[in-house]
Amino acid sequence: MNIAMLGSGFIGRFYADSLLGGRSRDKIVSVYSRRKESADKFASDYNVPFVTTTMEDAINRPDVDVVCVSLPNYLHEEAVMLCCKHKKAVMVTKPLGRNAEEAKRMLEAVEKAGVFNGYLEDLVYSPKFLKAIQSVKEGALGRILWAKSRETHPGPHSDWFWDIEKAGGGCILDLGCHCVEITRSYIGKDIRPIEVMCWADTQVKPIDAEDHAIALIKYENGAIGQFEVSWTFRGGLDLRDEVMGTEGTIWINNFLRTGFEMFTTGKGADYVAEKAESNTGWLFPVGDEVNDLGYNHMFNDMFSAMEQDRQPEETFYDGYVVNAILDAAYRSAKSKLWEPVKLDIWRGKTGITRESTLQEYDKDHYLVKEELTHYGAKKVILKNKKDGRIIEKILE
Amino acid sequence: MNIAMLGSGFIGRFYADSLLGGRSRDKIVSVYSRRKESADKFASDYNVPFVTTTMEDAINRPDVDVVCVSLPNYLHEEAVMLCCKHKKAVMVTKPLGRNAEEAKRMLEAVEKAGVFNGYLEDLVYSPKFLKAIQSVKEGALGRILWAKSRETHPGPHSDWFWDIEKAGGGCILDLGCHCVEITRSYIGKDIRPIEVMCWADTQVKPIDAEDHAIALIKYENGAIGQFEVSWTFRGGLDLRDEVMGTEGTIWINNFLRTGFEMFTTGKGADYVAEKAESNTGWLFPVGDEVNDLGYNHMFNDMFSAMEQDRQPEETFYDGYVVNAILDAAYRSAKSKLWEPVKLDIWRGKTGITRESTLQEYDKDHYLVKEELTHYGAKKVILKNKKDGRIIEKILE
Amino acid sequence: MNIAMLGSGFIGRFYADSLLGGRSRDKIVSVYSRRKESADKFASDYNVPFVTTTMEDAINRPDVDVVCVSLPNYLHEEAVMLCCKHKKAVMVTKPLGRNAEEAKRMLEAVEKAGVFNGYLEDLVYSPKFLKAIQSVKEGALGRILWAKSRETHPGPHSDWFWDIEKAGGGCILDLGCHCVEITRSYIGKDIRPIEVMCWADTQVKPIDAEDHAIALIKYENGAIGQFEVSWTFRGGLDLRDEVMGTEGTIWINNFLRTGFEMFTTGKGADYVAEKAESNTGWLFPVGDEVNDLGYNHMFNDMFSAMEQDRQPEETFYDGYVVNAILDAAYRSAKSKLWEPVKLDIWRGKTGITRESTLQEYDKDHYLVKEELTHYGAKKVILKNKKDGRIIEKILE
Amino acid sequence: MNIAMLGSGFIGRFYADSLLGGRSRDKIVSVYSRRKESADKFASDYNVPFVTTTMEDAINRPDVDVVCVSLPNYLHEEAVMLCCKHKKAVMVTKPLGRNAEEAKRMLEAVEKAGVFNGYLEDLVYSPKFLKAIQSVKEGALGRILWAKSRETHPGPHSDWFWDIEKAGGGCILDLGCHCVEITRSYIGKDIRPIEVMCWADTQVKPIDAEDHAIALIKYENGAIGQFEVSWTFRGGLDLRDEVMGTEGTIWINNFLRTGFEMFTTGKGADYVAEKAESNTGWLFPVGDEVNDLGYNHMFNDMFSAMEQDRQPEETFYDGYVVNAILDAAYRSAKSKLWEPVKLDIWRGKTGITRESTLQEYDKDHYLVKEELTHYGAKKVILKNKKDGRIIEKILE
Repeated sequence: MNIAMLGSGFIGRFYADSLLGGRSRDKIVSVYSRRKESADKFASDYNVPFVTTTMEDAINRPDVDVVCVSLPNYLHEEAVMLCCKHKKAVMVTKPLGRNAEEAKRMLEAVEKAGVFNGYLEDLVYSPKFLKAIQSVKEGALGRILWAKSRETHPGPHSDWFWDIEKAGGGCILDLGCHCVEITRSYIGKDIRPIEVMCWADTQVKPIDAEDHAIALIKYENGAIGQFEVSWTFRGGLDLRDEVMGTEGTIWINNFLRTGFEMFTTGKGADYVAEKAESNTGWLFPVGDEVNDLGYNHMFNDMFSAMEQDRQPEETFYDGYVVNAILDAAYRSAKSKLWEPVKLDIWRGKTGITRESTLQEYDKDHYLVKEELTHYGAKKVILKNKKDGRIIEKILE
Repeated sequence: MNIAMLGSGFIGRFYADSLLGGRSRDKIVSVYSRRKESADKFASDYNVPFVTTTMEDAINRPDVDVVCVSLPNYLHEEAVMLCCKHKKAVMVTKPLGRNAEEAKRMLEAVEKAGVFNGYLEDLVYSPKFLKAIQSVKEGALGRILWAKSRETHPGPHSDWFWDIEKAGGGCILDLGCHCVEITRSYIGKDIRPIEVMCWADTQVKPIDAEDHAIALIKYENGAIGQFEVSWTFRGGLDLRDEVMGTEGTIWINNFLRTGFEMFTTGKGADYVAEKAESNTGWLFPVGDEVNDLGYNHMFNDMFSAMEQDRQPEETFYDGYVVNAILDAAYRSAKSKLWEPVKLDIWRGKTGITRESTLQEYDKDHYLVKEELTHYGAKKVILKNKKDGRIIEKILE
Repeated sequence: MNIAMLGSGFIGRFYADSLLGGRSRDKIVSVYSRRKESADKFASDYNVPFVTTTMEDAINRPDVDVVCVSLPNYLHEEAVMLCCKHKKAVMVTKPLGRNAEEAKRMLEAVEKAGVFNGYLEDLVYSPKFLKAIQSVKEGALGRILWAKSRETHPGPHSDWFWDIEKAGGGCILDLGCHCVEITRSYIGKDIRPIEVMCWADTQVKPIDAEDHAIALIKYENGAIGQFEVSWTFRGGLDLRDEVMGTEGTIWINNFLRTGFEMFTTGKGADYVAEKAESNTGWLFPVGDEVNDLGYNHMFNDMFSAMEQDRQPEETFYDGYVVNAILDAAYRSAKSKLWEPVKLDIWRGKTGITRESTLQEYDKDHYLVKEELTHYGAKKVILKNKKDGRIIEKILE
Repeated sequence: MNIAMLGSGFIGRFYADSLLGGRSRDKIVSVYSRRKESADKFASDYNVPFVTTTMEDAINRPDVDVVCVSLPNYLHEEAVMLCCKHKKAVMVTKPLGRNAEEAKRMLEAVEKAGVFNGYLEDLVYSPKFLKAIQSVKEGALGRILWAKSRETHPGPHSDWFWDIEKAGGGCILDLGCHCVEITRSYIGKDIRPIEVMCWADTQVKPIDAEDHAIALIKYENGAIGQFEVSWTFRGGLDLRDEVMGTEGTIWINNFLRTGFEMFTTGKGADYVAEKAESNTGWLFPVGDEVNDLGYNHMFNDMFSAMEQDRQPEETFYDGYVVNAILDAAYRSAKSKLWEPVKLDIWRGKTGITRESTLQEYDKDHYLVKEELTHYGAKKVILKNKKDGRIIEKILE
């Protein structure tokens, strides 16, 4: 694939490391940045032949197969519209829009233009997530009751993130978009999110946007999604998921505790660990960040989809649903109410009813719980079907 | 100490194991149970001379120094009133009441009667908690922003827990009481809890009470407490705390991951692990449950307090505050609103204002973030004091 | 119990914290130290009425029930002989002697004098070990094949440890004694240790004794014990055991990873973590060191044994066996050969033969391995009884 | 690259998954297997156009750029000689030979033939190892003192592994080859291995080869390598490295504890976890096995090396050194002596002397240890340069 890269900052470089890693078949043929020196540096580091500070010029080139939008949030829509104009396949970094309105316009534009569209949500492509979701789909956890994703760290690298106008929000938009798509995937992407309760606050940073937020997302089948996001966490990047089902549990730690532990006095060398808050004492590096955070599997899906003329796992539609959920979170943080998720476009199931919780025990009772006592006897706790009374019964 | 034990079930036995452990100076001199055979078994196991099915008879004995109430929730008030009548020191298992009204009556009764009162909340006496809270008090974490406690397992052992009338509620009351007191302690027991938002549902069990709930508790200084409780968790007893402060983080795992891991095929023997959901495969036992869950340090504080004629760390007042918070959680779960915590009695600070988040950088700017770049240069993100604009600046 | 404490240094204070912890029934009635100011400080901290710099005076007092020897290794024998002379029960810190010769003289002396003798090996009383050994005895791991114990840290606190004459050796004697008794217990204290292979070196410290050593200990039944000890480890105190059996595995982490994790920038306060090599960054405190390292359960066994007129779990005989194994390790480190364990006194089993490894499959074959293939079929690997040929067979 | 694959079993399929993963540029153009049906299945699964049961026919094809030898150990030499005959680049799975003699013949053959040769030791290409070795090279751990690698599991999948003639040995050869190259890399591949002490036994399986072994490898600079290997481990695949340096520590867990934990009752579905010993209870999957075990980075290095006309990180020379160390281990297991590593060919440093352990403190003393006391004072332990006496000194 020949790629036009829009943006040459932190995420653009991460993408390039993945896109050009190993003995890649792909190359970046043009790069756009608002700042010439940043674009030049990127071009030099990644061997890109064409450099421009005019966005359209990077896109509108015959050799470009696909455009990768790695720009600040407030520039996504402009970039997408240009791709539509020039009929270029387009992939956009997360979040898709600053809000659902923007996202919806982008979704409608790419579908109208008939161009390939991919939503670059890497964390539902991380190897651990991929294996976990497969287990969930095979039923290892039974019915999913709750899925939480947590992403917290000491704050983003670039100035625009901290500017509520350019970013569209604070840590909810920056980190919550990951968490929403992760938990929505565990619960089922075809299950409709109904309403959101969110607490958000600016506890530490001198900014207008929130630097800490927690939300609950209720789905039509009664399952609950949850996110915990913050720019005030101390200790590195905390990236964990937890899922509860009727038959099992999943705990995933993507970053700070992955089986790699190092202690260093710092005397030996000027060693600086990536993303850590310190470079001495106990450090917890990640082996292969680009692979472990999902970038490789994500671009593999994107390009395979293009080659096979199918949709990737994550499209603008998914980005739009995520934005709609985040919008509800923002409204809730202000209104202090459970706010409905407004989805003008919904392509999943509708009218799902909740599963019954009644488990038959015998003709008069439901089963509440069954356990082994210390004495090795089996004990059941039962509920009388008629009068609702709870009793214990020891079985032989 | 000579102890009258009211209740001979699961928690009474746990308490007895702690009270009589090692080469204890203390003894249980009377035991009451609703069921004679249970009282007899307890008396035989723990060498108790006096057995009765009349509560008052267990209490009203000259040799009894202190009464330990290990009864189902709906019997706490009756037991406490009898202790007041007979001027006996009294310790009550958690939660103190089924609601704040009951708790308040008990609090007022013991204070009026002038009897020693202890609230048996073991988890703020666990060794890990004690060391963590000391670090927090010494300032290792800076200002506390958020404290979460999670307690989930596959459901309680006895029938009465599942009966909403006898228990007063479901997992919120059973498990949330622990979590509330843990998180309140990290945030500061003198900081007033203001309001609560709670989601609760009966997702799995055929019962009237909730089997899964999540709540946020807002404190007057802007800190947030959180609990996650469930009777539907699969995999054992999940008992974890997480605390975020401006200068640090604490993660405590009290049960399933404590540095003890065992794999067994189960062929070797009929080995049965305590509290585990399975007895083959990977198991995660706890070394010294009675000590690690805080029972030893709790009774040590209770009895030392009695001997030194001081209050223990946890009194009925704490139990009352916990009940008031849980009441607000129950109201919120129904109303779907943030519900105020109603505290007729409040003995902590009042009128606390939130700390400013503005960190001076120079006369024109506040500091947003400071970090080392890959290149070893120091970068600051600043906010203009006048126009609020965010800028990046690379320092030499 | 009324205790005479000999020694007022690091380990004496640890013992005192355990002996007098909680609402203890016991007290320290006399303390001896070589240095007056150290004895005085100890007496003041632990409320000890009698202080002396004459060892015999601390022992030979009518109110002393038991003597606790917390002295440097080269003073153990002198102390024990004085206890024998005055017919006092005696408990000695690890290692019992500087070598098996010393240990044997002490063993013979206490047995001849008929006094109670306890070997203060706390790590076979740690709560995790106690639960693990119970599982092993119940058969959860099948036949034990290998047991390793590792204790490494950045070096001991007091000068005498580093003096080979006073200590009798380096980290082998200081730390290996723990590891030997732990692994010997897993394999079975009645199984005879046969021979030892040991590597030892002085890799870092400017001392005569070894600062790093690894050894294998072969037992009569074919099981292997292993120790890894060092005074050159960076990162804190690494204290781990691993056990392999035919039916299971045990992994115990006693110190650096026990479910308590804290990050601190160090800005909040002058927080200093115990035993850690740093006081900022990620720290891993232990909840209740005195309990978790086994001191409480150890003294409880010692005093219960005295009260019940039985032997404690660890006696001078065990200390002697440990010293004999360590002697063989020292000889092996020099000779580079497997050195026999010389045990003039052996009270366990003798003439044990190894269990056969042949597992019958059918009349012509032994079973090598059985597994499920990807395809869900069962596959066996078999060995022909006659010609020894190995074959694969897929079963339906 | 066009690859000829020799062998279609477990490891061949793992290699193919890596070679053809993602949107690979490479393809397998021929496959050889001793069994036609296995070759056919492989060809069908991986879309290979040419299938043969004649080894030479798979190699000697014009479109073959490189031959990948994934055969049982006893067939490596034959395959390599055919590659030399036809001047084909060749990569051989681990271990290179059944012994150093075989390995040396292969090394000399490929060098004489002038063909590219790669040694497929994936575990020194695992992402965690690559990051760890970089830190070590940058000095984060100071001087390396000890490096251990452990690989244990319940036994290999195919019959030939269990046949000492075909395999050349048991778990030492099968698993020890990994561990030797890992630890040798940490210590420095240019540091000469001098001698080996090894214990090996057949503790469980009815086979002629060893099923459990532990060895120490002494290097010329005094560093110690260690391996622990077994086919008798219960609980899955245990794959861990530990490294100690004068300034730091590294702990890597490659398999059973990587931040992915799942509990399942097994009721939900017929879920079967890969490589686990059970499919219910707590399971610990690995996210992306092919990447996490190093296959991707290994083949990337191999093919990049071919394209850039340089040597890969691991060549037949490395395979030969590993075999020479393992030979010494086998001799030692029999002789019970430290056995010299016989290296006719050695291309690293020679005549290295050990670093002095003396650390200057002042003109009269060496520094033994420096620490902070509880009281906040700094304490040093010093050794007198003349008389060797050890003293303590408290600094203000």
